[in-house]
Amino acid sequence: MPISPSSCFPTSAIVREVGLRDGLQSLSVVMPTQTKLEWIDAAYAAGQREIEVGSFVPARLLPQLADTETLVAHAKRQDGLTVSVLVPNLKGAERALASGADLMLVPLSASHAHSLANLRKTPDEVVAMVGQMRAARDAAGSSMLIEGGVGTAFGCTLQGHVPPQEVLRLMQALLDAGADRVSLADTVGYADPAAVRRLFDEARRLAGDRLCCAHFHDTRGLGLANVLAALETGVSRFDACLAGIGGCPHAPGASGNVSTEDLVFMLESMGIATGVDISRLLALRQKVGVWLPDQPLHGALWQAGLPKTFHSLSVAAA
Amino acid sequence: MPISPSSCFPTSAIVREVGLRDGLQSLSVVMPTQTKLEWIDAAYAAGQREIEVGSFVPARLLPQLADTETLVAHAKRQDGLTVSVLVPNLKGAERALASGADLMLVPLSASHAHSLANLRKTPDEVVAMVGQMRAARDAAGSSMLIEGGVGTAFGCTLQGHVPPQEVLRLMQALLDAGADRVSLADTVGYADPAAVRRLFDEARRLAGDRLCCAHFHDTRGLGLANVLAALETGVSRFDACLAGIGGCPHAPGASGNVSTEDLVFMLESMGIATGVDISRLLALRQKVGVWLPDQPLHGALWQAGLPKTFHSLSVAAA
Repeated sequence: MPISPSSCFPTSAIVREVGLRDGLQSLSVVMPTQTKLEWIDAAYAAGQREIEVGSFVPARLLPQLADTETLVAHAKRQDGLTVSVLVPNLKGAERALASGADLMLVPLSASHAHSLANLRKTPDEVVAMVGQMRAARDAAGSSMLIEGGVGTAFGCTLQGHVPPQEVLRLMQALLDAGADRVSLADTVGYADPAAVRRLFDEARRLAGDRLCCAHFHDTRGLGLANVLAALETGVSRFDACLAGIGGCPHAPGASGNVSTEDLVFMLESMGIATGVDISRLLALRQKVGVWLPDQPLHGALWQAGLPKTFHSLSVAAA
Repeated sequence: MPISPSSCFPTSAIVREVGLRDGLQSLSVVMPTQTKLEWIDAAYAAGQREIEVGSFVPARLLPQLADTETLVAHAKRQDGLTVSVLVPNLKGAERALASGADLMLVPLSASHAHSLANLRKTPDEVVAMVGQMRAARDAAGSSMLIEGGVGTAFGCTLQGHVPPQEVLRLMQALLDAGADRVSLADTVGYADPAAVRRLFDEARRLAGDRLCCAHFHDTRGLGLANVLAALETGVSRFDACLAGIGGCPHAPGASGNVSTEDLVFMLESMGIATGVDISRLLALRQKVGVWLPDQPLHGALWQAGLPKTFHSLSVAAA
C-alpha cells in the first residue's frame, strides 16, 4: 500500500533549524565559529533550507551567539537558504538589516511577567517596537521579512496561566504594527494537543497564511503530539533543534526543543515531504554529539535507528 | 478559559498499565513478588483500574513473570480492578481460567516471520487456537474476556512491511473465532500518525466497539503522537508502562512502551479524564526507579514536573 497522507495533512512541510540559536543559547559552552559554519553547511547539504543562525543581542549577555554576523554572511552564500536571526530590540534590528539576513524574528512574550523579566518591556511596548522596526526596514529599502513570535502562548513558568485571548490580541497587534508574519511558541513546554488545536484554529482565523510557524518544546514529552495537532490546523512550518538541545536550566534532564531528526522522521513517515535527507541529518546529529560532548542531548530516532520499512521522500542532491 | 475537550476527543479514556508484564518481561532482573504487589496496590490507589499483572508462560522462558498466579489472586481483592494476563497458548489459557483473571490477552503477530519466530505458530494457527480458548472459556462457564491483540500491526523488524489488509483480515478472523474484543499493537515502534489513522479508521469500520485498545511503543519518539492519532479515530483505551520500561534489547537506550505518566499527563491536560491522580502516579514512578536502580527508565514529565497551570481532572479518594 503506497504511503499517501490523509486529506487534512499537507503534502510538504518545512522544519526550520533553530539549534544554533535556541539550542546553543541555553548551553554554558561556546561553540567555535568554525564548528557552527560546518553545522550550517552540513544542514544545508542534508536539505535544510531555513536556518536561524543566531541572535543580535549584546555579546556580554549571550557570548554563545556573539558571532552571528559572521554566520549570516557565510550562510547567505548557500543558494536558496533562508537565513533568519532573532532580534530583541532596535539596535539588534539595525544589525540584522546590515547583516543581510532574510528574516528577523522578534520575540514577544504574551505573559506580562515573562515579558518584563526577559525583555524588560511590556508586550505592548514590544508591539510598538515592531512598528519602529518595520519603519526602519522600509526606510532601508530592505526586503528582510519581520516575523513576530508570540511566546509563552500556552502558559508561563512565572505567571502561570496566559489567556488565549491575550495571545490572539497580541498576535493581531503585531500584524497591525507591520510584522509580515507571526508564529506561536510554547516557550516552556506547557502546551497540550487540545490547547494547540484551539489556539492555532483561532489564530488561523485571524491571521490566515500570515500565521507561519509553530515552535514547541518537548519539556514534558508532548512535543511531537503538539506538532501533529498543529499540522491538523494547517501549520506547515515547525521550529526544531537537532538533537533536541536547549533544555531548561531549571529542570535538569528535561529536554528542550522538539528534536529535528525525530520531527523530520515523523513527517516523512507520514508522507509529508520535508526536503531533508534523514541519513545525512543523522550523520550531522552524530557530529553535534561530538561537538557537545558533555551536554544533554535528546531525541529517540538516533538510538533506535530507522525502521526497515522507512522510505525517505527527500534525498538531497549529492 | 475553562478546559474543554474538542468535539472529536472523548471525555474520558483508560490507561491500562502493562509495566508489570510488557515492561518487566524485557528486563533481565526479576522483581520480587512483594514489590510487584506493592506496585499493584499503589497503582490502584492512584486510580488505575486496569492492570496487566503478568503472563502465563512457562517459568523457564520468563522467570520474571513466574509469580503471575499470586499477582492475580492479590489484585482480584481490589474492588473494581480489571485484572488482565497475557496468554500465548492453551496451557496458559487453562491457567488463566483457573486464576480468576478478568481478561486474557492473546497475542497474534500479523507478521508471519515474527509469528513463527516468537510463537512458533502461523497467525492463522493462533486464530484457530483462540477458537479453542473460547470453547474452553465457555465450557468452564467463565466470564473471563478474551482479547485478541494483533501485534506488529505497523511493520516488523524481521519481515519489514506488514500489509494492512493482512492485519485487518487477522483481526476479523480473531473476532470470528470467538475473541470478545481486539486491539492493535505497534510492537516494534514502526507506526506513524498517518498510518495509525488509516489503520484504526479501517479497523473501527470492521470491528466497531470491539476494537478496544491501542498499544504503542515510543521506540522512535512517536508514541504520544500515535496515541493522539488513535484518539482521533475513537480509541479510548491505551496500554502504557510506568517509567516507559520495556525497551528493546536490540536497541540499547531506545525506550519501550509509551510511559504511563506522560500519557496520563497528556490526556488530563487535554481535558480527557483518566481517573488517575497524577501526583500519586509520579510518587509511584519514583518508587519504580528505586526498585529498578540499574535499568533504563524513560519519560519526560518526571524530570520537568507538572506545569503551574495543570489541573488534574482525576483525584483518587484518600
